Amino acid sequence: MNVTVRGRTNHYRTVAFDTAKNSVLLIEQRLLPHQFEVIGTRDFKETAKAITDMIVRGAGAIGATAAYGLAQGARAFRGKDLKKFERHVEIVYHTLKSARPTAVDPVNAMNDVRATMNSGETVEEQQALALAAAEEFANHDVQHCEEIGKHGAKLIRSGMKVLTHCNAGWLAFVDIGSATAPMYAAQAEGKKFHVFCDETRPRSQGATLTAWELAQQGISHQIIADNAAGHLMQRGHIDMVIVGSDRTLGRTGEVANKIGTYTKAVLAKRHGIPFYVAIPLSTIDWDMKSGFDIPIEERHESEVLGAWGITGKGKREYVRVANPGSGAFNAGFDVTPAELITGIITPAGVFKPKELWGRRKQLGFIG
Amino acid sequence: MNVTVRGRTNHYRTVAFDTAKNSVLLIEQRLLPHQFEVIGTRDFKETAKAITDMIVRGAGAIGATAAYGLAQGARAFRGKDLKKFERHVEIVYHTLKSARPTAVDPVNAMNDVRATMNSGETVEEQQALALAAAEEFANHDVQHCEEIGKHGAKLIRSGMKVLTHCNAGWLAFVDIGSATAPMYAAQAEGKKFHVFCDETRPRSQGATLTAWELAQQGISHQIIADNAAGHLMQRGHIDMVIVGSDRTLGRTGEVANKIGTYTKAVLAKRHGIPFYVAIPLSTIDWDMKSGFDIPIEERHESEVLGAWGITGKGKREYVRVANPGSGAFNAGFDVTPAELITGIITPAGVFKPKELWGRRKQLGFIG
Repeated sequence: MNVTVRGRTNHYRTVAFDTAKNSVLLIEQRLLPHQFEVIGTRDFKETAKAITDMIVRGAGAIGATAAYGLAQGARAFRGKDLKKFERHVEIVYHTLKSARPTAVDPVNAMNDVRATMNSGETVEEQQALALAAAEEFANHDVQHCEEIGKHGAKLIRSGMKVLTHCNAGWLAFVDIGSATAPMYAAQAEGKKFHVFCDETRPRSQGATLTAWELAQQGISHQIIADNAAGHLMQRGHIDMVIVGSDRTLGRTGEVANKIGTYTKAVLAKRHGIPFYVAIPLSTIDWDMKSGFDIPIEERHESEVLGAWGITGKGKREYVRVANPGSGAFNAGFDVTPAELITGIITPAGVFKPKELWGRRKQLGFIG
Repeated sequence: MNVTVRGRTNHYRTVAFDTAKNSVLLIEQRLLPHQFEVIGTRDFKETAKAITDMIVRGAGAIGATAAYGLAQGARAFRGKDLKKFERHVEIVYHTLKSARPTAVDPVNAMNDVRATMNSGETVEEQQALALAAAEEFANHDVQHCEEIGKHGAKLIRSGMKVLTHCNAGWLAFVDIGSATAPMYAAQAEGKKFHVFCDETRPRSQGATLTAWELAQQGISHQIIADNAAGHLMQRGHIDMVIVGSDRTLGRTGEVANKIGTYTKAVLAKRHGIPFYVAIPLSTIDWDMKSGFDIPIEERHESEVLGAWGITGKGKREYVRVANPGSGAFNAGFDVTPAELITGIITPAGVFKPKELWGRRKQLGFIG
């Protein structure tokens, strides 16, 4: 998307590749929203570290980063010995895989790249194919988000007030995003609407990343405390909800997403407000049979007990908000049942959650 | 309640009076939970300023502060001229009244004190009556909270997990509190239970004040993000909810309380979890006919856009969390309809919200 820094506007992807320098280019997301910077990694180890350190985060974005990282590692190999090359690529693969061990997207992305590489007969050919496959992976990510936007934009009418939770924006993908894709597409069609961004404690991705994205694109928006959506719905100030998903169960239509998503779905149901989940096909889990089986990550209590922000002197600091003698429970995700979801916006169209399984062939299920 | 500071335990009220020094003693709540300090005001003007500056907050607590402030002002008068004394008291009254112009408790409390004072025939008699009336007002506040505790404790069984929102604890009253009263009473009966404190963004009173209170009393508790209660309820980890109220409509049973209360009530209803509201009688509004008529205070957006806390160097600072180019909407309260409320815990017993009107005589309605 376009980013304007000190009056200059340029188009960026969250993840890109500098062929001449053999470097993965990443928006340094830990500095956002207070500072915008693109970094270039010097080798695949730095790329893996960027994933570990959350310079880049979000399923689509880390998938593309791993794909580019594999190509970067392959292209750094000097020599023509295919056996040695393959051993080298194996090391690159495992280094990138272990950067975020629980994430599935880097693995899927690198398997894609490796499958393409293997058709090359020389080191040079395989190196060229690796880069082409990584580029294709990234472009597919963008294309899927564009398709989500195309289908989702039909749901947004001028004058609407849309609630979103956390960040399922372009910063979480290569470009455009999932939950934000319908907004960007609707804006491109000239529609005027207002977005309420849930702050999304404890990590505040709504107040930081989503608000930054919407501000950059000039979309009317306000941040609200996570406590406020119920009141706004009760008073008729929210017309629809769009969120992303970390894992969507193809068999049941259940959606695992950032903690607080379930609460918003319960509220939307009570008020008869449509609740949509926007997803790329890669987040569909076709195996799992119940949302109760989805592992819910428990994160460090310090996230709940305080906040990161910018002090009056412009320094980025963590402040402890909570009572020093108290602990916290910090679940990262929750699970929203199908009955609370009006529709799942996919690159292939908008479906009822219970329709996914019946359309599994169309939605990329291989089984 | 008992407060332990550096190993020494003493009993404190949120508001008390030093007769010898003619000084209102207040826990400096703006320093909590990071520092515990009791300040003494030198005159009624300082007492009014303490209310304005939120050194003391909470309906019961500012009512008692105003009552003591009126006695403090009356007792500072030198001379025997009753006319001059009455003009002086009038100034004191209006100074304290305008300290928090929208609050009703200080006015009701001072009207109580004045009614008692008026039976005195000399300045000296009126001064003595003022102090006696202020003491009685404060003692009644404590007594009402004790009665809330007595009735509410019956609802808490050992092993329960109780959710509370914001701070309706002893810091908001003279002592004991409303939502916390059943917890303290249940603890005194030897029951063991666990409390989840909603952080309560944007002002985080749950993470700061309620967590501090529970830690001081040795009650097992954890702070959770406001986003987490839905998930905990879904997984069976919450057995009941107890919150306070800023205004309860006697005619309809609707409850206005801190933003986010409504959301928790909707979630509790979905999961069949009892939802209780603990109130002193003074918060019942017998006139208003609909919750939609309750004015919802909109507060400054800076509360949503950042947080106050303690830096690594131990300094209390505000950090801006949100994107600098984005604004916020900040409603302070919401309204929970009667159908979501299992019971209202009052000093006179536990009632269904729709029962209040039928029992209005018993509940102090004069009309």
